[in-house]
Order: sequence, then structure tokens, then C-alpha cells
Amino acid sequence: IMALRARALYDFNSENPGEVSVKENEIVTLYSEQDIEGWFEGLNGRGERGLFPASYVEILRSDNSSCSTSGDTYPNSRYANIPPGGFDTAPLQRQQPACQASDDDWDDDWDDSSTVADEPGTVGGRYHDFEGNGPSTYRVSTSSMSRGNAQQAKSSATVSRNLNRFSTFVKSGGEAFVLGEASGFVKDGDKICVVMGQYGPEWQENPYPFTCAIDDPTKQTKFKGMKSYISYKLTPTHTQNQVNRRYKHFDWLYARLVEKFPVISVPHIPEKQATGRFEEDFISKRRKGLIWWMNHMTSHPVLARCDVFQHFLTCNSADEKAWKQGKRKAEKDEMVGANFFLTISTPAAPLDFQEVESKIDGFKTFTKRMDDSTLQLSATVNEFARKQISGFKKEYQRVGFSFKVLSQAFEMDQQVYSAGLNQAISFTGDAYEAIGEYFAEQPGKDLDPIMDLLALYQGHLANYPDIIHVQKGALTKVKESHKHVEEGKMDGMQAEGINERCNIISCATLAEIQHFHQIRVRDFKAQMQHYLQQQISFFQKITGKLEEALQKYDNA
Amino acid sequence: IMALRARALYDFNSENPGEVSVKENEIVTLYSEQDIEGWFEGLNGRGERGLFPASYVEILRSDNSSCSTSGDTYPNSRYANIPPGGFDTAPLQRQQPACQASDDDWDDDWDDSSTVADEPGTVGGRYHDFEGNGPSTYRVSTSSMSRGNAQQAKSSATVSRNLNRFSTFVKSGGEAFVLGEASGFVKDGDKICVVMGQYGPEWQENPYPFTCAIDDPTKQTKFKGMKSYISYKLTPTHTQNQVNRRYKHFDWLYARLVEKFPVISVPHIPEKQATGRFEEDFISKRRKGLIWWMNHMTSHPVLARCDVFQHFLTCNSADEKAWKQGKRKAEKDEMVGANFFLTISTPAAPLDFQEVESKIDGFKTFTKRMDDSTLQLSATVNEFARKQISGFKKEYQRVGFSFKVLSQAFEMDQQVYSAGLNQAISFTGDAYEAIGEYFAEQPGKDLDPIMDLLALYQGHLANYPDIIHVQKGALTKVKESHKHVEEGKMDGMQAEGINERCNIISCATLAEIQHFHQIRVRDFKAQMQHYLQQQISFFQKITGKLEEALQKYDNA
Repeated sequence: IMALRARALYDFNSENPGEVSVKENEIVTLYSEQDIEGWFEGLNGRGERGLFPASYVEILRSDNSSCSTSGDTYPNSRYANIPPGGFDTAPLQRQQPACQASDDDWDDDWDDSSTVADEPGTVGGRYHDFEGNGPSTYRVSTSSMSRGNAQQAKSSATVSRNLNRFSTFVKSGGEAFVLGEASGFVKDGDKICVVMGQYGPEWQENPYPFTCAIDDPTKQTKFKGMKSYISYKLTPTHTQNQVNRRYKHFDWLYARLVEKFPVISVPHIPEKQATGRFEEDFISKRRKGLIWWMNHMTSHPVLARCDVFQHFLTCNSADEKAWKQGKRKAEKDEMVGANFFLTISTPAAPLDFQEVESKIDGFKTFTKRMDDSTLQLSATVNEFARKQISGFKKEYQRVGFSFKVLSQAFEMDQQVYSAGLNQAISFTGDAYEAIGEYFAEQPGKDLDPIMDLLALYQGHLANYPDIIHVQKGALTKVKESHKHVEEGKMDGMQAEGINERCNIISCATLAEIQHFHQIRVRDFKAQMQHYLQQQISFFQKITGKLEEALQKYDNA
Repeated sequence: IMALRARALYDFNSENPGEVSVKENEIVTLYSEQDIEGWFEGLNGRGERGLFPASYVEILRSDNSSCSTSGDTYPNSRYANIPPGGFDTAPLQRQQPACQASDDDWDDDWDDSSTVADEPGTVGGRYHDFEGNGPSTYRVSTSSMSRGNAQQAKSSATVSRNLNRFSTFVKSGGEAFVLGEASGFVKDGDKICVVMGQYGPEWQENPYPFTCAIDDPTKQTKFKGMKSYISYKLTPTHTQNQVNRRYKHFDWLYARLVEKFPVISVPHIPEKQATGRFEEDFISKRRKGLIWWMNHMTSHPVLARCDVFQHFLTCNSADEKAWKQGKRKAEKDEMVGANFFLTISTPAAPLDFQEVESKIDGFKTFTKRMDDSTLQLSATVNEFARKQISGFKKEYQRVGFSFKVLSQAFEMDQQVYSAGLNQAISFTGDAYEAIGEYFAEQPGKDLDPIMDLLALYQGHLANYPDIIHVQKGALTKVKESHKHVEEGKMDGMQAEGINERCNIISCATLAEIQHFHQIRVRDFKAQMQHYLQQQISFFQKITGKLEEALQKYDNA
């Protein structure tokens, strides 16, 4: 059997243990063409072994054809119809390659493709790749291929933080809108207001703010246990009615939102990941990620109120008919992409485009710096957590063990007056072994939330290049129109229209930036406080343990 | 030039970084025949590079003659008169080889051999080898060669923890005493009482207990700065008169004590060492070692009261004549070795030798276990200190740095409402960098004292095999005498004498063991308490710093 080779389509920078970086066009060797929850294992060009996203590479065939796997969403996907037999090295389960998944009936029952246990995150379950959480993303993009920003939906859903890499593919509705090509009937309920606030344009606040709890996920089974999946219990505060949703429902919703809102940074849903961090229970970890996601959704004045999200939050999970109706309605929503801008109403006074440009440029610089520093912090914190779980724990436990050994040696002495000391030293040994455990347990309480926060923001930061791209594109059209008017190629009315529509896009973009800063300050303040509080409790717990040990010497 | 080779005279087990183990008879390669404060650098037979004590090897010459260096104390030191020119590979400064040091006039001024700066522990000062602290040990042993346990004095003074290795050489006075060969006039002031205490025989308490402070050492110079040395200020509580002493004075005193007291564990003075631990200031470290040593001296009912120690503590340092008188008197003391036992008075009731044997065997097992466990604890603590100074510090400082970088990125945002947060995160970064420093500083406060304690006790534990050997030897003589009496080869009176003298040795040995346990419990209790108190303060300091950081978020 020939070594299975693939070519990297994009740069991928490894960020977690077990991952390996690849460069665009680099030739990599795969251990199997069967991906593990969207990841391939293999060697990169430098011989480093590890995981990289399956969607980042295209497999090289001996006949020089290539098949980019689960992530493939190019409209002219040449290899979509390669027969199963064409993949000669693939095991039986691989006979439904990702490229063919688009043939599945998307509108069938949500769970019909799930014929084996659907437990997210079980790396060993290699055969779950094309059902459950995986394919919904894929199908969304293929079935909605005709829409403006289908690629955006796909790429964001598949791998976060990499949207900017696909920016050349992104066809947001911005251009069409600026050029006046968008049209649709805006209902009163669809209206989205940008108001002038203290710091510039901002989204009108949600007059009915709410939050939504996500309770402990439970395993559900169907068809006499033949199918099983994880169900999350969602309880929004504005209805107080619990609904059950699966990861793939979140995934579907996410795709709808990305499609609908071209200049809003839709928070990324937690990634599928093959390498569990610190062996922490994956389900609990995903739940935490979904809680963060939900928090960002309900905090956003526009996202929180939109129909598809409300349908997701409120539709009775037992009423399949109602669910499907809402789902179809959302998928047929006209007010997406270019048409989204039609729904925006702006402050009376138009913006000064020069000022807008300066603000946008400043924000662009800001996001770059923030992206770099969150990446660095993320790596540092990850390593810090690893050290606490391994090295720090080991050191404290070794000291504890050595104290225990000393106390055991001392117990060989039968002098009555040394018994108290021996017990105290033995207790001290236990205390240090306990402190070692404290160090190992701590990252789950304080560093993990920091990492979750950083991951969420890295997702947002990955969204902004495209958002900025839309605004800059609009501004370029304005400049071009001015030139065209000067050259007599365009009438003033037409240019004025472009100006006005660019103003709408600019208002929306600045409102979104303003919102980003506000939740950023809120989130980082809260997380830093939480982190420090946890650290303080941690060191106090250690101090308490040591004080307990010290007391044992009082009567020794 | 031929490689300089040497043969190991004894086993040496490396215990510190930089040292390398050698086995008896192993051939080693030296980098230079010039030792560094009593250590050679070279390769052992397994090709491992490092330091080993110069006194443990004899240099092999091409003419097959050998010269064991500074540690050489065999009476028939054949190579003492090799002309300087004979050492062809030696640099100029090497022209006074260690073998010749014995020609020096020992009774000359204490400092006369010191013609270059005498700063202990400066490894770079390679030319100090044959003056200052080094040679005094050597001269003591050669000048007292006629006495019973000169080798013991030498070997203990040169390298601690290795006395047991020389047990076959050790001719303590025990045998001579048991056989009734010791004789001398015991003055009232020389009388040493063993009394029956709650737990068996014990030394009569010192009715006038005292302690002695050792104040910060200062550098002294003589002969217009041509000679310099470190002087320690000693202030005993019973005189309140400060005297100045140099390390070599301690070294001389130590040799006297070892010579005089065959069944008392004389605490080892801090070793000369070439490899500084954690680059801590060597002088301050040696002072701490001397404080420990002094504490054990003044705590010992017999050692604290003996003449030579009192001379050392009280003789006016400016009065050279008085000093020399006391010195000569001590060196001519008749009540050393075998005669020491003449000075002991025992409780009226003789001991049950079976019970004594069982106690001694129990103690032997105890010392073995304690030696193993203190060695392990010592290694663990050393590694723990190293980790705190390197890894722990680095991790906390990296986290601190990453927080700083994040705050700098956030400062790119000109939103007024984020200024407070930026400052708080920046402060948090500083706090973590400070905590990193705390970790690096901490071992000096809590682990170093533990290591000093363990080193002192490892010295005591190394003394006990010889002490036990003396007692066991006496007991064997008793058994032999009983047999001889049965066989009619010895009269009852003679055997009774052996019995009585074995009783004296046994009383002294058990009193010493009892004293050992008492100070052990006292010292370990005090040190463990000190350690835990320091650790508690440390974690409280961290908590305080974090609380300070947390407060910065209150108005952020």
C-alpha cells in the first residue's frame, strides 16, 4: 500500500499538544484517510507527527486527482461523485466519503444518520465521523450553496479562527447592497436600530434582556438503544421553559446566523476536538463552551432577538412539526446577507467617513495585537496548567513522600518522647501530598475558564477581518463613485445612494465594534476577577493545610 | 604531557551536583594536580566528569611512586621530600605540593602560611589550596601522629560522613581501655558523670548551660593587605566576651575533640566545598553551618564543658601568648582516647549487657534507616529548591509577562471605560512576576535550613558506626573473657575488670545515644515548625499580592 499523501490547502498553526503545524502547499503523510472528528493524524514535511484539521488538506491520489475531505465546499467540487470503490485504501466504514455526504437528505429527521452511538469527543469512536455533529456543518453549506456567504458559514463552523484565511472566497452581501442590488420587504419586526451613543454608533439595547441556562447534558437513546446522543437542557429566562438541544442543533443555528449577519461577529460554537485537554471530561468541557457561547448570544442586542435564535430557544423539543416549520422558515429567510442591511436604521446624522476609516484602521491594529497576545497568553496558560498538573504536583508529592519516609525511619526509635514528632512529620508528609493534588486540581478551576474565554475571543478576532473587509469594500465603492461622478460616468443621485448605503454598513460595523469592546471589558474583568479569586482560595487552602500540619507539632 | 592519573584510596559517593563517585582502587584521570579547596576535578573510570575529594586519591607517577595529596597522613609518607622540580606538569604555584606541607612549622603563627587572599569558597582562587583552611587539618594529623586515633581525627576533619569508611584504620582507645592498659591521673575537673535517667543512662546535665552567638563574618587583613582571611565573631553567653576565630581554628578544635572523645559524636564542621549551592553566598552559608555546629556543641553536656572548647570560646583573640599556651595544653592532653574512659563515672548498678546489646542493635538499625531517609529527603529538598528557583519562578513570570502583553494590547483601545481594566491586568502581570520572585527567594528561607539540618545529622550518622564499633568491641572482649575464665585461662578478677570497663563504655555509649535522640527530636521539631511557618508566610504573601491585584478590578 502506498503511503497516503496530502497537500495542505492553508497554513495551520498548531495550538494544542498533539497538533502539528502545516504550511500551505506542504506535502503531508497521512496515517489513515479516515479522519478523527475532523482531524487527520500524520507527518508534516518536517517529519513532525500530530493532528491537523482534515479540511486543511486535500488527499493526493495516484491518478493526480485530489479530494479535500469533510471540509470541501467549493461549488465546483470536481470529486463529489467519485465512487466509493475509488478509495482503495479506505476501510469499509469509509465507503461514504465526505465528498458524498451532500447526497444525504438534509431535511430528513435530525437523527436519522445516527446509527451508532453519538457521543461527542470519544476519540476511539473513529466511525462517527460522518454522522452526528460532523456532517450537519457540511450539509448546511452544500444545501445553501446558492446563497451569498455559504462558504463563510461552512468555514466558520468547521474550524474557528480561520475565517480570515478564506476571505478571498467570502462573498458577503456587502457589495451587492452598496451597489443597490439588494431588495426585500422589511417587516416591522425585522427592523434593527443603530443609535448614536456616548462612544459612537451602537446597537439599540435589547429592551427585554434575558439569559439562558444550559444544564448538565444527558445521554439520550432512540430506537431501542441503537442510536444515542447527548442532549443539553436549555432554559431561557424569558420563557422559563426547558428545551432539549443537541450539538448539531447549535451547529445548524450557527450556520444560519453566520449566513444572515454579514457584519456581526457570531460567536463560534465549541470546536470538535480530537485531543482532550488534560483528560477533562469532554462533555462537561463542551457544555462550558456552549455556556460561553450562549452568554455571548444573549448579550448581543441583535443576535439575541433574531427569529432563528428565538425559535431555537423556545420551540418545544417534543413538537417535531413546529420545529421543522421554524427550521424551514429560517432557511428560507430572505433577509440574509445583502438584504440584512436593508433592515438597519441609522442615526439621522450621517457619519464622517474619514473618521470611520480611522476608527476601523485603529480597530484592525487592535485586533491584531489582541490576537497575538491572546494566543501567547493561551499558550502560556496551557503550559502553566500542564506544569501544575505534572511537575508542580510531582515536586510537592515527592517532598511529602520524603517526609513520610523520614517519619517512618523515626518510628524505629522507641523513645516515647518522639512519638508526637513522628506523627506530626507523617501528617506534614500527607499535607504535602494533598498540596500536590491541589496543584493538579487547580487549573480546572481557574486556568481552564481563562482558556475558554481566550478561545471564544480568538473566534471573534477571526471574524473581524471579514467584517472589516465588508466595510472597507463599501468605502472603496464610495471613493470610486466620487471619481465616476467627477468623470461624469455616474449621476449624483446614484453616488448619493452608494454613500447612504455605505453609511448603513459603517454604522452597523462601528456598532458591532463598540459592542465587542463592551463585552470584552465585561468578560475579561469578570474572568480576571474569577481567576484571582480562585487563586486566592487555592493559596488559602494550602495555607490552611500547612497551619493544620504546624499545629501537630504543638504537643510533639 | 602524559595524562595525570590517580588511584582512589576509598569509595566516594557523590552527593551534590558537580561531584562524581569513585570506587576504591578505581583509576581516575585528573585535569590538574592542583586541587580546588581540597577537591580534584577529573574523570572517573566510567568517564564521568566531576569533583572528588583530593584526599581520596593518590596520584600515580610514571616511576610508579605515588603521592596522596593534602589528605596524606600515613606515618611513612614516602614522598614527603620529593623536590619541587619533580612535579613537571605543575604550574609555578604548585611548587609547594601538599606532600610537603608537613614540613611547615605547625606551631608558627596561625596565619603565616597565608600569603594570598584567604577567602573561603572562591573557586576561582585556585592558588589558595595550601594555606588558609586547607592545611590546618593536614598538619594537625601529622603533628599528632603518635596518638591513638590520629587517622580518625584527620579523616573526619577532611571529609565528613566518611568516618565509617576508615573503621578498619580506627584504633580507638576502647580496646586498650577494656584490657586495662589505660592509665592516667584524673583530676576532679575532668570527671564526667553518666547518670541513670528516665530512659536509661544519660550524660549528667550541664549545670551552667550557655549558648554562643556567631556574628557576621568579616574580612580581616594582615601585613598591609598581603594576607586576608575571614574572621567570625563568637560571643558565648556565659562570658559575654566576644572572641574572633577563623575557620581553621574551628578545624583545629574539631580535630582535638575527635581525638579526645571516642564514643561521643562530635558534630562535623561545615565542609569545604568547591561547588556553591544555588550560588548562595558561601561565607554566609558557612556561618549558618557554624551556627548549627555551635548549637550542637553547646547542647552537649560533655563537649560543652571540655577544656579545649572553653579555651576556644573564651581566650582573648588579641592575646597570642595565652592562645598558644592553651593550644599546646590541649595538644598535650593525656585524657584522650583510651584515657577518656578513665574520666567517666557510672551509675551504681551495672547494666544488663544483653539489654545493652539489644539497644545498640536497635540503634544501629535506626541510624541506617535515618541515614537513608535523610539522604532521600536531602536529595528531594535540593531538587525542590532547584525547581522553585528555576521552573516555578519561570512559570509564574511567564504568566505575569503574558498578562502584561495582554494589557498592552488592550491599551491600543482608546475606549475610556477600558482604562481601569488595562491597569488592573497590568498590575496582575506585575503581581505574577513578583510571585515568581517569591518562589525563587523562598528556598533560602525554608529549604536551606532543612538541608543544613540534614547535613549536620548526616555527619552524626556517619560517626555512629565507629561509636557502635567501640562498644561492640568491648562487649566481644567481655564474652571472650568469660570463655577464658571457663577455660581457666583468665582469673575471675581480671574478667571482672573487663566487665566493669565494658560497663563504663556501654554507659557512655548509651548516654550518647540518648543525647542524640533528645537533640534529634528537639532539632527536627524546631526545624519542621520553622519550615512550616516559613511556608505559611510564603503562601500568605502570595495571597496578599493576589488580593492586592484583585482589588484593582473593583473600579475597573
